[in-house]
Amino acid sequence: MCTVCGCHDEQSRLISIEQDILSKNNRCATINRNYFRGRNIFCLNLLSSPGSGKTTLLIETIKALNNEFSVSVIEGDQQTSFDAERIRKTGVKAVQINTGKGCHLSARKIGRAIDELKPAPDSLLFIENVGNLVCPAAFDLGESCKVVVLSVTEGADKPLKYPDIFHAADLMILNKIDLLPYVDFDVERCFEYARRVNPDIQTLQLSATKGDGMNSWLNWIRQHRKTT
Amino acid sequence: MCTVCGCHDEQSRLISIEQDILSKNNRCATINRNYFRGRNIFCLNLLSSPGSGKTTLLIETIKALNNEFSVSVIEGDQQTSFDAERIRKTGVKAVQINTGKGCHLSARKIGRAIDELKPAPDSLLFIENVGNLVCPAAFDLGESCKVVVLSVTEGADKPLKYPDIFHAADLMILNKIDLLPYVDFDVERCFEYARRVNPDIQTLQLSATKGDGMNSWLNWIRQHRKTT
Repeated sequence: MCTVCGCHDEQSRLISIEQDILSKNNRCATINRNYFRGRNIFCLNLLSSPGSGKTTLLIETIKALNNEFSVSVIEGDQQTSFDAERIRKTGVKAVQINTGKGCHLSARKIGRAIDELKPAPDSLLFIENVGNLVCPAAFDLGESCKVVVLSVTEGADKPLKYPDIFHAADLMILNKIDLLPYVDFDVERCFEYARRVNPDIQTLQLSATKGDGMNSWLNWIRQHRKTT
Repeated sequence: MCTVCGCHDEQSRLISIEQDILSKNNRCATINRNYFRGRNIFCLNLLSSPGSGKTTLLIETIKALNNEFSVSVIEGDQQTSFDAERIRKTGVKAVQINTGKGCHLSARKIGRAIDELKPAPDSLLFIENVGNLVCPAAFDLGESCKVVVLSVTEGADKPLKYPDIFHAADLMILNKIDLLPYVDFDVERCFEYARRVNPDIQTLQLSATKGDGMNSWLNWIRQHRKTT
């Protein structure tokens, strides 16, 4: 829960606690990372606002790759197990983490979910983080790559307004491009803003519901699975 | 900044700090509330995910009400002053608060912004909170009412997945209804979910860009300004 966030008003008192928590999180993340590396598991941490289409993107990705790889999923939400239930309908294993009042997934929670999920060696593991463009940026989960998803209905200025998450990401996926004719959104300007906060960020655009651009995302996964 | 959020993994240690911060925030909120009441200022705290259309809604609201009331605005974002600049183009005063790594506005930050803004007696004051469906729910700012904005592109399940913010809100605005023909969104189901977590929540639907439903929102403001 983020009621502890008053840290910026309480800087002197809380900065050491903050460092302590992040350092403990980093230790758990290292354990997760070693686990993934030891089993050649390619783990992607998907980050976005609520409603950017992460779950639909995951379902279409699983349908496309399920014959190629073993896939499992960790779902994060404040409440409900809607997303894990949607994922399980594709036939893959999914664990739901409910964070209650919490605004992000922690490496420790991922460690516990891995114990339950037991992802296969050489598999793909997707983590769908809590929908939040702010807080999850600070928490390393031990993932192979961070992927930030933005939808075209959210506005092209978001990389500059919420820079931390775009700075932390390896890949930015622009989703819902089928809605571009109906909204005021400048794709190139948005990608330029993302590169301004993170010159190394890779970018893709797609529509998970209509299928446009999905192949470039699937190929990105295949390629980065080999090299990460 | 929400790197202190590990509180749920560090419960015993952090719960007293959390209570302390919320209690300090509540004291600042009470000061703000007394200020608003003493000057008959109707203050609305707008909450939503990034990209739900809060700023556009505010601009259209200001254009419609500016001859009727004195209006001023406090804008919250991690970075940039884009939103305050957009608001100022309507001719009203706006103060931008950049939260840096922070994920919500605090009552103390609002107090400082009020000092700068000096809203007129009998006026309307809009606070556009940081785009985040989780953390701002816990922080009373001293506002007259909390208004949560959800857009139809975000999915009808959000009130159940992020219940705290819908539980805290007096009014839920469903925005971007002009996009309903292009997305899979069940309006009645979404409102039913919102009432499930908050039986007293009021609901409105509108399109800030196209104007549909704006009158019901403007009338809601006029009516609640008198009775709150």
